[in-house]
Amino acid sequence: MCGVFGAFAKNGQSVLEDVYLGLYALQHRGQESAGVAWINSRGTMHSLKGTGLVHLALNQQQLASIDTNCAIGHVRYSTAGGSELTNAQPLTATSSRGSVAIAHNGNLTNAEGIKNYLENRGAIFQSRTDTEAILHLMAHQPHKPRLDAFVDSLRRLIGAYSLAVILDSRLVAARDPWGNRPLILGERDNIIYVSSESCALDLVGASIIREVEPGEVIVIDEKGLHSIRIPKDVKKGFACSFEYVYFARPDSIFNGKTVYEVRKALGRKLAERAPCPDADLVTGMPDSGTIAAMGYAEVSGLPYEKAVVRNRYVGRTFIEPTQRVRDLGVRIKLNPIMNMIKDKKVVIVDDSIVRGTTCQRMIAMIKDYGAKEVHVRISSPPVRFPCYYGIDTPTREELAAARMNIKQLEIQVGADSLAYITEEDLIDAIGLPARDVCTACFTGNYMEGDHTDEMEL
Amino acid sequence: MCGVFGAFAKNGQSVLEDVYLGLYALQHRGQESAGVAWINSRGTMHSLKGTGLVHLALNQQQLASIDTNCAIGHVRYSTAGGSELTNAQPLTATSSRGSVAIAHNGNLTNAEGIKNYLENRGAIFQSRTDTEAILHLMAHQPHKPRLDAFVDSLRRLIGAYSLAVILDSRLVAARDPWGNRPLILGERDNIIYVSSESCALDLVGASIIREVEPGEVIVIDEKGLHSIRIPKDVKKGFACSFEYVYFARPDSIFNGKTVYEVRKALGRKLAERAPCPDADLVTGMPDSGTIAAMGYAEVSGLPYEKAVVRNRYVGRTFIEPTQRVRDLGVRIKLNPIMNMIKDKKVVIVDDSIVRGTTCQRMIAMIKDYGAKEVHVRISSPPVRFPCYYGIDTPTREELAAARMNIKQLEIQVGADSLAYITEEDLIDAIGLPARDVCTACFTGNYMEGDHTDEMEL
Amino acid sequence: MCGVFGAFAKNGQSVLEDVYLGLYALQHRGQESAGVAWINSRGTMHSLKGTGLVHLALNQQQLASIDTNCAIGHVRYSTAGGSELTNAQPLTATSSRGSVAIAHNGNLTNAEGIKNYLENRGAIFQSRTDTEAILHLMAHQPHKPRLDAFVDSLRRLIGAYSLAVILDSRLVAARDPWGNRPLILGERDNIIYVSSESCALDLVGASIIREVEPGEVIVIDEKGLHSIRIPKDVKKGFACSFEYVYFARPDSIFNGKTVYEVRKALGRKLAERAPCPDADLVTGMPDSGTIAAMGYAEVSGLPYEKAVVRNRYVGRTFIEPTQRVRDLGVRIKLNPIMNMIKDKKVVIVDDSIVRGTTCQRMIAMIKDYGAKEVHVRISSPPVRFPCYYGIDTPTREELAAARMNIKQLEIQVGADSLAYITEEDLIDAIGLPARDVCTACFTGNYMEGDHTDEMEL
Amino acid sequence: MCGVFGAFAKNGQSVLEDVYLGLYALQHRGQESAGVAWINSRGTMHSLKGTGLVHLALNQQQLASIDTNCAIGHVRYSTAGGSELTNAQPLTATSSRGSVAIAHNGNLTNAEGIKNYLENRGAIFQSRTDTEAILHLMAHQPHKPRLDAFVDSLRRLIGAYSLAVILDSRLVAARDPWGNRPLILGERDNIIYVSSESCALDLVGASIIREVEPGEVIVIDEKGLHSIRIPKDVKKGFACSFEYVYFARPDSIFNGKTVYEVRKALGRKLAERAPCPDADLVTGMPDSGTIAAMGYAEVSGLPYEKAVVRNRYVGRTFIEPTQRVRDLGVRIKLNPIMNMIKDKKVVIVDDSIVRGTTCQRMIAMIKDYGAKEVHVRISSPPVRFPCYYGIDTPTREELAAARMNIKQLEIQVGADSLAYITEEDLIDAIGLPARDVCTACFTGNYMEGDHTDEMEL
Repeated sequence: MCGVFGAFAKNGQSVLEDVYLGLYALQHRGQESAGVAWINSRGTMHSLKGTGLVHLALNQQQLASIDTNCAIGHVRYSTAGGSELTNAQPLTATSSRGSVAIAHNGNLTNAEGIKNYLENRGAIFQSRTDTEAILHLMAHQPHKPRLDAFVDSLRRLIGAYSLAVILDSRLVAARDPWGNRPLILGERDNIIYVSSESCALDLVGASIIREVEPGEVIVIDEKGLHSIRIPKDVKKGFACSFEYVYFARPDSIFNGKTVYEVRKALGRKLAERAPCPDADLVTGMPDSGTIAAMGYAEVSGLPYEKAVVRNRYVGRTFIEPTQRVRDLGVRIKLNPIMNMIKDKKVVIVDDSIVRGTTCQRMIAMIKDYGAKEVHVRISSPPVRFPCYYGIDTPTREELAAARMNIKQLEIQVGADSLAYITEEDLIDAIGLPARDVCTACFTGNYMEGDHTDEMEL
Repeated sequence: MCGVFGAFAKNGQSVLEDVYLGLYALQHRGQESAGVAWINSRGTMHSLKGTGLVHLALNQQQLASIDTNCAIGHVRYSTAGGSELTNAQPLTATSSRGSVAIAHNGNLTNAEGIKNYLENRGAIFQSRTDTEAILHLMAHQPHKPRLDAFVDSLRRLIGAYSLAVILDSRLVAARDPWGNRPLILGERDNIIYVSSESCALDLVGASIIREVEPGEVIVIDEKGLHSIRIPKDVKKGFACSFEYVYFARPDSIFNGKTVYEVRKALGRKLAERAPCPDADLVTGMPDSGTIAAMGYAEVSGLPYEKAVVRNRYVGRTFIEPTQRVRDLGVRIKLNPIMNMIKDKKVVIVDDSIVRGTTCQRMIAMIKDYGAKEVHVRISSPPVRFPCYYGIDTPTREELAAARMNIKQLEIQVGADSLAYITEEDLIDAIGLPARDVCTACFTGNYMEGDHTDEMEL
Repeated sequence: MCGVFGAFAKNGQSVLEDVYLGLYALQHRGQESAGVAWINSRGTMHSLKGTGLVHLALNQQQLASIDTNCAIGHVRYSTAGGSELTNAQPLTATSSRGSVAIAHNGNLTNAEGIKNYLENRGAIFQSRTDTEAILHLMAHQPHKPRLDAFVDSLRRLIGAYSLAVILDSRLVAARDPWGNRPLILGERDNIIYVSSESCALDLVGASIIREVEPGEVIVIDEKGLHSIRIPKDVKKGFACSFEYVYFARPDSIFNGKTVYEVRKALGRKLAERAPCPDADLVTGMPDSGTIAAMGYAEVSGLPYEKAVVRNRYVGRTFIEPTQRVRDLGVRIKLNPIMNMIKDKKVVIVDDSIVRGTTCQRMIAMIKDYGAKEVHVRISSPPVRFPCYYGIDTPTREELAAARMNIKQLEIQVGADSLAYITEEDLIDAIGLPARDVCTACFTGNYMEGDHTDEMEL
Repeated sequence: MCGVFGAFAKNGQSVLEDVYLGLYALQHRGQESAGVAWINSRGTMHSLKGTGLVHLALNQQQLASIDTNCAIGHVRYSTAGGSELTNAQPLTATSSRGSVAIAHNGNLTNAEGIKNYLENRGAIFQSRTDTEAILHLMAHQPHKPRLDAFVDSLRRLIGAYSLAVILDSRLVAARDPWGNRPLILGERDNIIYVSSESCALDLVGASIIREVEPGEVIVIDEKGLHSIRIPKDVKKGFACSFEYVYFARPDSIFNGKTVYEVRKALGRKLAERAPCPDADLVTGMPDSGTIAAMGYAEVSGLPYEKAVVRNRYVGRTFIEPTQRVRDLGVRIKLNPIMNMIKDKKVVIVDDSIVRGTTCQRMIAMIKDYGAKEVHVRISSPPVRFPCYYGIDTPTREELAAARMNIKQLEIQVGADSLAYITEEDLIDAIGLPARDVCTACFTGNYMEGDHTDEMEL
C-alpha cells in the first residue's frame, strides 16, 4: 500500500509541482510519509521527505519553484520497515558514477536473503525497507553500464514491485513480472508521466498512454520511451484483486478495467449470490461499501439509501483512543440516520471483514436506533490469509474469517444474516482470466518461488 | 456558520472530553478556529482556543484530564470579526461578581449600535465579534442579579443567536426569538447537553430531549432544566432554509425535520419541476448534490451513478493556488469517471450556484471526457441576496444569479440546460409553514426591525 | 522587571525594526514575552506579541517590512499578572474615538482598588496586568480630549511606572512622580526614541537627549517634544537602587550615573568595609559579581582572576530540573578552574544573596576543588524586604537575610567569612542624595500613600 | 570544530542524561546540530539527532527516561559535509554482525581517496561527512573480528580524529597518532566518561583519569579500560595551538595545560613583546580577548577595565542581517561604555584577526565614543593559512593577514598601532616542545603524508 509517481519533460519544463499534485491524488495509497526526488540541470540528485499527509510532509510552493525536468515521488503506508522518516522514500544514492533515486510500491519476498548476501560483501543498510536492496545490488555491479546494472538487479528480485526511478538523468518505470501492483503511463504536452493509478494522470490533466506490462522496464528520456524486458520467465500474471475490492480509487483503471465498474459488478454478483428479498432498503458501509451497495440495489430492486453518514473529518483529525472514545466506538466516525432505519429491515454492504470489530459495532448501533433486522453482505470472499505483496493485513490469528466459519462469524457480529460472494464471482466481476489474478488473501495461493534464501550475483 | 456545544453533569462527572467530541461532530460548521471554556470546582473560569480544525486547535488528552462538570465549546467559520485568534470563541469575562463564557452561532444585526452606545459609557472592546456586545451589556448592569442581566441583555439584541453559555456555575442555552439557527437539547445518564445539531448528540451517545424554542432561555443546574422566555413579541418564526439545503449535516434534525429527508424531497421536487427524460444517468456534485441527485433519480426513473469522484483528502490538505493549480481548476478536487460518461447525456444535481465557477469548470471537464450533453439541476431557488444572519455569502455583485437570469447563467456555465426549483417547492419540501421559514437569501425578505441605530438600556 | 522602547520618525521613516533592535538590547529586563504595537498611515493600531525571547516572540523581517513612523515595544518579566500571552504587552484598545497602546515598566500599588471601582461601572478586564487599569481609566472619561484623559488617569496611580505609549498618532513617554524606574530619551536623524535604558539607544545608534523627569509626560509628534507635568505633589525621588546593584546593564546611565561605575564603586566600598588581607585572589560570581570584584581587587591590592567560568549557553538552553540536574546543582552553569583555586584563600564577590542556595553550592564546589578558605563579600546591604515596584523578589519568608543575621547566614552558606556593605556605603557609591533613592528592599522604607483602597474619578 | 562525549556504566546505571549534559558543556564546540546514540539491553542501537543547539536538537526528559549503560553524543560545527541533518552525528550502522556508532571531532585529509576506493567496491555513501568512510572501511572487512576491523580501519586514516564510538556493547575512545584534537577520560562512581574537553567532565561531576594518548584506542567495558596502539609510526605530536588561543573553554585542560593559564600567559607575552606605556587602560574584545587582556594588564601595570559590554543574548537570538543591521554592525553585539573611554588612550586585546571586519568596526566605534587613541594587541601570531584538521577557517584570500603585512593591516583597521606575538612566544606560553605543537594556521607547516590518493586495504 504505497503510491509512486514520476514525470519527465522532454522540453525542459519544470515538473516537480506536477509530482506533488500526483502524490496528492494518490494520497489514499499511503498517509504515513511522502517524498520527492529530482535531478537538477547539473545532474545533482536532491530529495525532500516528511511524515504525514503530502501537504504536511512537503511544501508545494517550494517544489513549484524548483527547476527540474525529471522527478519522482512516493507516498508511504508502512509495510516493511516501520514508519520512521529514514524509511520514507524515494531512496537515493549518489556516487562518483552518478545518482539513482527509487520509489517503490509493493513488497519483495526475498529481500532478507539479498540483504545477507550483500552485508557479507561490505554493504551498510541505512533503512529497514526492502527497497534499499535494489540500490545495493546496483552498487555491487560498479563496472557495468548503470542501466544494465539496474535491470540485472531487478532479475534477482522476487515479489511485487512497481517502481518509479531516476537513473542519472532519465526517468525509468518498472513493473514486476507478475504484474501484481498497477503502474500506468500518461502524457500531456511534452511531459511523460508514470503513476500507480490513472486517477493521478487525470488530476494533472494527462491522458493515458498505456499500462506498463508485467516484467517491463520503460526508459524515458528526450528521445522518448524505450522498453526493456526483465528476462524472467513469466508463467502467469498475478494482478492484485484487492486493489479492485478496496484499495484503488474508483475512478482508476487497472488492467483495462475501471475500478468503479468492477466494484458495482461485485455488488450485482452479491445480490445474485445472496439476495434478501424481504428487506426495506440497502445501504453501504461508508465509504468502502457504497458502490457495491448501489450494484446490490440495482439487481435486487431494493431502494438504495445513504442511511449511514460518515463524519467528513474522520481521517483528517486524529481522535485519541481514550476510554470514552473506545466506549463510543464506531459512532465517532459513522452515524446512522435514525428516521431512515427505525422499524426497517436493513441490508448493509461492505467490501470485506478483516477483524470484524467495526461490523459488529455498526450492527449494534443500527439495532440500537430501532432497525428490525440487519443483513450483512460482503462484496468479496472471506479474507483468510495475510498478504506478502504490499497490502497491510493482520496475521492469520487476527483475521476473523480465518478463525471462524461464516455462520460463527454471523453470530459473532450479531447479524440476522451474513453472506459473501465466491472466488468465482470475484473473478467474473473483475473480468480477467482466473490464472492472471492474485487471490492469495482469500485462497492462500501465493506466487511460486517465494522466500528464496540463496542468491548469486 | 458556527457551531456551539455545551454539557452539564448533575453528579459531577467530567464533561470536557464530550465537549471536544461534540465539536468534532460539528466541525463542518466551522474550520477556522475552535475553543472550549469550563468552570472548575472552585468556580474559576478557564478557556483554551486555537486556530484550525478541532484536533489542531485543542488537545483532546489535555481536555480529557481536566475535571469540570460544566463546559461549552465553539467552532468558528468567521462571519463578523475576521479569523484572528482574538475573535475565537468562547468569549469569557471574569470580574469580582463572577464569570461568564459565551459561545455564539448566528449574527446580530444591531451590534454596531450597541457597541457605540457602550463605548460612550467606557467599554473597551477586545475582539471584533458581535458576540462581545452581550458581555458588555451584562457588565453594564452590575447591580442586577446576573441571570437577569443576561436575559435583559438578550432583549436588546436583533438578529440570529443560538448560544451556549456558562453563567457562574450553570449551563445556559438561548435561542433568538426568530429561531433562525438550530439548537437542541440532549441527555445521557446524568448529563444534559446543548448542541447546534443533533448529530453531535448522537456522537456522544445522548438521546434528544427537545429543541430549544425560539425566544427561550434554558438554565441547567443540579436541579434540572428551568425555562425563561425572552419577552419579546414573537410574530413569526424565521428558520434558516439554507441549513436544510446545504449547511447542516444530513443526519441532523432541525425543527422536527431530518435534513437528509428534506434534501431528498428537494431532489424529488426538482425532478417534477425540471425533468430531463432523455438523459442516460443522474449524478450529484460531490458531496453537496448527492442526496438530492438520489431523489431526482427516484422520481425520474433514471439510473443514479456516483460518476464524479471526490478526492477524499480535499479540505484536509491545503493546495496552494499556484498558476498550475488554477489551470487545473476543479480537477484538483473532483474527477469524473470517463467510462461512465463518455457518449452519455448526463444530469448533474447540485444544491446551489453561488459564483458559478465550480459549476462551469465541472461541465467543461465532463464534456472534455466525452459526455454528449450536460444538464444542470439545482435543488434550491437561485441565491440572489446576501445573508446577514450567519451564513457567509458573497456580496450581491458576486452572486451569479443576482447578475444574470437563468438563461444567461445557463449560457455562462455552458450547460445544455439549467433549472432550479421554486420558493414554493422549497417550502413544500421543508414542510414548515411558509411564514416560519427564512428565505432571505433567495427572496430578499429579511427580518423586521433590523439595523436599529438607537438603543437605551 | 520589564523594558519599554518607543520610536517616532518626524519625516515618516519606518521605525519598527529599530523597536525590535531596542527590545533586543533590553532583553535582560524580561525574557517571558515580547511585543510591539504600531500605528499605520491610516491611523489603525496593530500589535504582535509572543512568548519567550524577542527573536522567538517576534519576526524581525516581518517587522522590518512594515511601514510605520510611530511604534512601541515591551519585554516582560512577569510581576503582576502571570506569564500567559494575554498578559503580554503592549496592551491596546481601539474605539470609535481612536486607538491607544501602552507598554509599562513598574508596578502599581493601588491597581486593585482602581479595578474594583471600574468593574462597578461596567468594565471588563481581559488581562491580569495592573497596566490594563490605565486603559479603563481613560475609557471611562470618554468625553474629555484623549491626552487629558490619559494624564488624568495617571494622576490616579500610585506606584512605579515608566511608560511608552501610542496615543492616536503620537508617541508619549511618562514616568511616575517618584522616578522609580529609568526612562530616557534619544535621537538620531529625525527619529525620537524613548527607552528604559540608554544601552538600547546606543544599539540603534542614537544619542542621549535627556532622562524623562519624575512626574513628567512627554508628547512626541511632528512638531517635536512637548512636556506636561503630572500635577501630583512630588516630595522626594525614589530611584531604585537595585537597578544599580544588579538589574540594569553596566553600560546604561540612570539618573546621570553609569551603572558600571557605580558597580565598581560598590566593590571599592566593599573592600574598605570588609577587607580580607590574607587572601590570595579575588574573583566574582559570574556575571553578577564581576565588576564589583574588580573594584574590590583594586582597593585591596589582591589579584583579580576570572576563576569561575560560566557556561555561555546558560539561559539560552533550558535544562530540565531532573533529579540528576538538581544533584549537580550550580555545576550546570558555573565551573571553577581547579588549578587557580587549589590550596588558595579565595575572596568571591556577589551582588546580593536572595535565597542563599547558589552561594552555598558555589562555596561547597570551590572547597571541593581544593580551596583553603572561601570569603564571601556582597556589594549591597542584606535584602530583607520584598519589592512592590516591579522587581520580582520572593516573600520575606524566603529571603535568607530576613530569616537570619549575618553570622547565621555565614554558617548556613559555609563561608569562612561573610560581609556586606551598609546602606550608607550604597548611597555613597550611587552618589545621589539619600532621600532620592529607594532602598525599600534593604530597609523596608516604602513609598508613602501606598495601598489606597478608595478612589473617585 | 566539533565535540564528542561518551559514557559507560559498569553496573548498568542509565547514562544518557549525562551524555546530554556533557554535550551541553561542549556546546561552544558546535551549534549546528547535536545527536546521541546508545545501545539498549538487547544490543539494539538507537540514535536521535536534530539541528540547532543541544536543547533544541534533543529532548532531555526523553533521554533521561531511556535505559542504557553505553551511549555517545556529538555536537557539530559543519566542516566537511555541510549542515544538513543527514550529516549530523553520531553516524550509525547496523548489520547482522552487530552495530556501530561513531562521533568524530577533527577532519581526515585522505577521505576522498578512501571514498573512491570503497565506491569501486560497491559502497553507497549516505552522508557527505568524512566520518562515514570509517564505517565503510569496517564493513568491507566483514570476516575479521569487529574490534580488529575497527583498528585496522583507523590505520588507513590520515588527519585529525578524536572519536567516541559504540562498538557492539562497548564504549571505545580513539585519538589520531598526531594528537591533534583533545580527548580525555574521566570517572564517577562506576561510570567511565570520554570527552573532548575536561570542562564537560567537571559538569557531570566526574574526575579526570587521564588524556587519551596520541595513537591510542581505549576499549571500555564491564572489565574496565583496555588500551590498544594504532601501530603507525608516530614521529611527533601535533597538538592544535588554536584550541589554546581561542577554541577550547578556559576551564579545560589539554595536554596537561589549563587553557585559562595559557591564555593569560599569552597576554603577558604580548605585554612584553608589544608594550604601550602611555595608554590609560587595557580592555579585551569580549569574550575572546578578555583573559589575555588581564595578562597584558598584569605585566604592563595598566588598569584593566571591562570597557566593552557584550549583549548577553548575542548568539542566543539570531538577528537577521537586514540593511539596518549591517549599518549598525558590531553595535548589535558589543557596546563600549562611553564614560570609560572618552578622552582616553585605550589598549584593546583580541585573540586573533581573521577577516579584520569586527576589529575595524570596533575601533571606529571606540573612536566615535571619544577615545584619543586605540592600540590593538593580538595574543597569537598572524593567521595566514587555512586549517585542514577541523577548525573552520576561511580561504587564504579571505585571511586579512595573508593579504597584508602588519603595517598595512594596521592602516586597514584604523588602529593607532597594531602588534602580534611571535610563533616563539606562542610556543613558550603553551609550554610544550615546539615539535609537538601544530601551528599550521600561522606557519603553513602541515602534517606529513597528507592528501594521499592511493590506498590498499
